[in-house]
Amino acid sequence: MRLTVIGIGLIGGSIAMTLKQKGFVEHVIGVDNNPLHQDQALQLGIVDEIMPLEEAIIHSDLIVIATPINIAEKLLSTILNLIDKQVVFDVGSTKESIVQIANVHSKKGRFVPTHPMWGTEFSGPEAAQQDAFKEKATVICNKEQIDQDALTLVEQVYEQLGMHILYMDAMKHDIHVAYVSHISHITSFALANTVLEKEKESDAIFELASGGFESTVRLAKSNAAMWVPIFMQNKENVLDVLNEHISQLKKFKSCLEKENVDYLSDLIVNANGIKRILK
Amino acid sequence: MRLTVIGIGLIGGSIAMTLKQKGFVEHVIGVDNNPLHQDQALQLGIVDEIMPLEEAIIHSDLIVIATPINIAEKLLSTILNLIDKQVVFDVGSTKESIVQIANVHSKKGRFVPTHPMWGTEFSGPEAAQQDAFKEKATVICNKEQIDQDALTLVEQVYEQLGMHILYMDAMKHDIHVAYVSHISHITSFALANTVLEKEKESDAIFELASGGFESTVRLAKSNAAMWVPIFMQNKENVLDVLNEHISQLKKFKSCLEKENVDYLSDLIVNANGIKRILK
Repeated sequence: MRLTVIGIGLIGGSIAMTLKQKGFVEHVIGVDNNPLHQDQALQLGIVDEIMPLEEAIIHSDLIVIATPINIAEKLLSTILNLIDKQVVFDVGSTKESIVQIANVHSKKGRFVPTHPMWGTEFSGPEAAQQDAFKEKATVICNKEQIDQDALTLVEQVYEQLGMHILYMDAMKHDIHVAYVSHISHITSFALANTVLEKEKESDAIFELASGGFESTVRLAKSNAAMWVPIFMQNKENVLDVLNEHISQLKKFKSCLEKENVDYLSDLIVNANGIKRILK
Repeated sequence: MRLTVIGIGLIGGSIAMTLKQKGFVEHVIGVDNNPLHQDQALQLGIVDEIMPLEEAIIHSDLIVIATPINIAEKLLSTILNLIDKQVVFDVGSTKESIVQIANVHSKKGRFVPTHPMWGTEFSGPEAAQQDAFKEKATVICNKEQIDQDALTLVEQVYEQLGMHILYMDAMKHDIHVAYVSHISHITSFALANTVLEKEKESDAIFELASGGFESTVRLAKSNAAMWVPIFMQNKENVLDVLNEHISQLKKFKSCLEKENVDYLSDLIVNANGIKRILK
């Protein structure tokens, strides 16, 4: 099996490394418009060679699009135009928009829209990790429109990565990730900006930062090139959740202003309900 | 050295375990009004015996108050009334209010107001850990009012725990922790409530939760009995930061509504500045 990775970063690189190590693919071709990432991917042994897009597609059986989602959408029609029997899958964080693009293409059966639920706040080939996806969930959207052989192959990819597969409507996926991923990132970015604003007045502030601060602000290191397109594409869902989150914060604000300790306690006890979900 | 721990939980328990293991104290007396915590602390070997407050103070050289801060403030005058040459320190998350209480007491020189910057979202004796504080920062407030022998003894305690000591005015401490600790907790509680609200409509939502979600929501498991008094006591500072945080979130909201991708990108790039602080 010959794999082409378009966008050799955290996700594309980690997939390539793991599939090669498992023996599921023998040869990995990298496509990336960043010369630094090309060099790093070759040096780290993540890819065997670098090719231009058209050539890479001709020489591969399986193609993963692992660019930021706005780039993925621009590339999808071009890629589907170029393929014959190859299978293409993407790994983007929103799914409705790319599924709509695929749906109007005659080769939509060769495209598997997926979203493996793993990532870190780091990016580029140097952030890639072997066995990163193990025991995490991955989503495959709108499977009824996918050719059986294409679906089976991508299911095998995720089995190799050690992930469990959830099948989900693209629209429902986008609502869910707004709640369990996108809002966490916005909160973290906004929290970093809140604290960095204060830092201008006081050098000493971060001497007191401990593990709790680090864990809530960690995602604020995440890459704008990846996240701006995600937020813009999932705008309506993200705005719904963001409005709800601001109104939840205002409840805390109101409790403090009115010194309503009972309601403040109720809000915290309710939030403790997250223990049911996070072990 | 005989140590009394008032409030045998995450912090008090961890301090006792570490000081005993290091040989800094030979005997630990526990004071706790929760019979379950008394039993657990004895069974786990965190304390050697349980005593009522008055008796414990008479039999000890060093006393740590590790209750929620509202209880600590109620107890401080009683404890200072009972001591002779003993040294008392607290470990509460806000400092201005307890320092004010100490300041009007004739034995204020025996009391060292401190705040070790470590914790987890768990509580009770079973959450206590040995060597938990290593390489973290601890704060000692308003040291100029403390008797030299009392200050030296508590400095030795924190050296034994492997912490580096920052000396800080209590008022300044409370502003700083609002930024680097209290707001993280409010954000996390509010985020948990946002998502739990949605869960009522959809069972599947948490199947997609990944590491990023877990890290931003982890603190939402934290105990109301500890955090309500902290928020109420540090109300003015927390409200300042909370207002700033809400206004930062509204910037993201406005970018999404107006599809202002350039400003959205600027906000994220600015937030990435947190990399300077979190390695």
